[in-house]
Amino acid sequence: MNSFASVEIIGSGLIGTSIGLALSQKGVKVAMRDLDTRAESIAQDLVGSAHEGQPDLIISAVPVSGFAGVVKRVIERNFNGVFIDVASIKSKPKVEVSEYPMLSERFIPTHPMAGREVGGAESARADLFEGRAWVIDSSSASAGARIIATELITALGAQVVEMDSREHDKAVALISHMPQLVASLLAGQLQGKPESWLGLAGGGLRDTTRIAASDPGLWREIVTQNSEEILPLLKVLLNDLQSLIGNIDDEKFVEEFIVAGQKGRAAIPGKHGGKPRSYTYLPIVIDDKPGQLAAIFDECASAGVNIEDLSIEHSPGQETGLITLALNSSDAVKLSEHMKSHGWNVHSPRQ
Amino acid sequence: MNSFASVEIIGSGLIGTSIGLALSQKGVKVAMRDLDTRAESIAQDLVGSAHEGQPDLIISAVPVSGFAGVVKRVIERNFNGVFIDVASIKSKPKVEVSEYPMLSERFIPTHPMAGREVGGAESARADLFEGRAWVIDSSSASAGARIIATELITALGAQVVEMDSREHDKAVALISHMPQLVASLLAGQLQGKPESWLGLAGGGLRDTTRIAASDPGLWREIVTQNSEEILPLLKVLLNDLQSLIGNIDDEKFVEEFIVAGQKGRAAIPGKHGGKPRSYTYLPIVIDDKPGQLAAIFDECASAGVNIEDLSIEHSPGQETGLITLALNSSDAVKLSEHMKSHGWNVHSPRQ
Repeated sequence: MNSFASVEIIGSGLIGTSIGLALSQKGVKVAMRDLDTRAESIAQDLVGSAHEGQPDLIISAVPVSGFAGVVKRVIERNFNGVFIDVASIKSKPKVEVSEYPMLSERFIPTHPMAGREVGGAESARADLFEGRAWVIDSSSASAGARIIATELITALGAQVVEMDSREHDKAVALISHMPQLVASLLAGQLQGKPESWLGLAGGGLRDTTRIAASDPGLWREIVTQNSEEILPLLKVLLNDLQSLIGNIDDEKFVEEFIVAGQKGRAAIPGKHGGKPRSYTYLPIVIDDKPGQLAAIFDECASAGVNIEDLSIEHSPGQETGLITLALNSSDAVKLSEHMKSHGWNVHSPRQ
Repeated sequence: MNSFASVEIIGSGLIGTSIGLALSQKGVKVAMRDLDTRAESIAQDLVGSAHEGQPDLIISAVPVSGFAGVVKRVIERNFNGVFIDVASIKSKPKVEVSEYPMLSERFIPTHPMAGREVGGAESARADLFEGRAWVIDSSSASAGARIIATELITALGAQVVEMDSREHDKAVALISHMPQLVASLLAGQLQGKPESWLGLAGGGLRDTTRIAASDPGLWREIVTQNSEEILPLLKVLLNDLQSLIGNIDDEKFVEEFIVAGQKGRAAIPGKHGGKPRSYTYLPIVIDDKPGQLAAIFDECASAGVNIEDLSIEHSPGQETGLITLALNSSDAVKLSEHMKSHGWNVHSPRQ
């Protein structure tokens, strides 16, 4: 980086560690911190060796409730670098820092619009932010701080979106907190239902409830911290649900209800949400016995291809299993030919 | 096929045409029918030439509202083959056919649990049903009819799931119709909101609203036809939403609300209806180079442990990767010790 060479990231969860990974790849020395020493040690292992002395940039990647502790650390250690936070609510950190005049000029509240339903340092990825929007509210910051924040965000492949902290909190209530609550609400209905019913679930239920698997501790905090912005939206939802219940047998009403959802869905911009990683998927049917996976990876190594991801599907008692490898498209073709010629049951790759 | 050589499929949409494609690939002669002559002709082109004379098997692949017309055709033409329907609601077709004693013995209500958010003959795929559950209610059918239905479903790669029609309708209200309505409800909230807010949308909103893009005409029918089973579920949802609104600032309540969703989500079985299993997860940081995965599996083989699942996390260009193995808890401990003693960078297992 031109404007910073060392960073201390406080918070070794998914977001903090992903930032650390991306920066360390670019030659920045990164110190990972966490109250949880296990998380800190995994994160530090992943990002490599830390710097010595004062960091040029301090990033708070803890939940909103932990932010006061981070501010305390920054002050106690006399850290004089630029100070950025990346928590998902922006008004509260901004107000907290405004009480410390020596900090406020070099503080920028920011929020990378990226995440996964799995948390923790183990789930971190250096490309988590690529193509994503990254909201910053630089209204109170110095020009120097703004330059560093912009360089950080750009280096991580994200796009700077300037937005007032309060407006940000309204926007995320709609596009992030509501989906979480609705997914949890729906998934909550599945508890205690017959296994034979749930066994029929297809992609619709899986997708709609995917984020219901998110971390309760994290979301308890986000929801209660942003309840002021969420509540009016929930009340509109309640109203719409009551209308649906009252008109469930009215074909015209139901059709218009589905059309309204279609229009809302279509209003989500296409590409802003990020470069989807586009892999080619190669299905391989295997005998479900020990050693098969190792053998597949031996084939990958000898074909010289790189596996980006894979999934394993097999049912108890079933004698075959399905391995689906995710690769780039040329590797998929290469591996498919290689494995077919070695007698594997490889099916056609698909996008 | 052993028990049938010719099929007439009435309804040339996604499901009907996908069945036709899969059967014609297996040498069965398939006649595609549709009130929409364009759909019929595309579908027939896709499946190849039709048979002459009486079909051995008649498949109704029209929406529930069109089923009476199909029954009329079967009777008028004196079709004497086995008669199967594949619509998404099962009680109503069963009741309709029960009025025709000459039909009921050779009629089987069925429902393949497969679909796409795009419809029409053009979207048909022969592999649409592979690995999917296919519900059948053979309680009123003859043994001969049951054999043909089973052969059909098995030939298409799906798994036969016997379930009473009424129970099926309750199950799909929960696992298919509720997700649709909830996705539409949420997506409907996005209408008219600032583009700058929607531009921040990430995968959570996209996944949660994906099926809101579904066909309003199709869903108008499914929802109104199955409203009796959907309504009680919507009322529970309403009740839960009211509780959330009343307790949005209560940290304990919100956390429990998210936990309830997590539990519901976890109750969805793995693919093929397999029981969800609880694994111990073992994170291993590796150099991201060919051969590392195979080496890990060699270690697993020499430690004598069995890997149930695994995930790979690494970013393009990153020099380390993270492999997380899923094992049973004793294997996790065994493997962890084995790999540590062989110099691998293994982190603490977690549940």
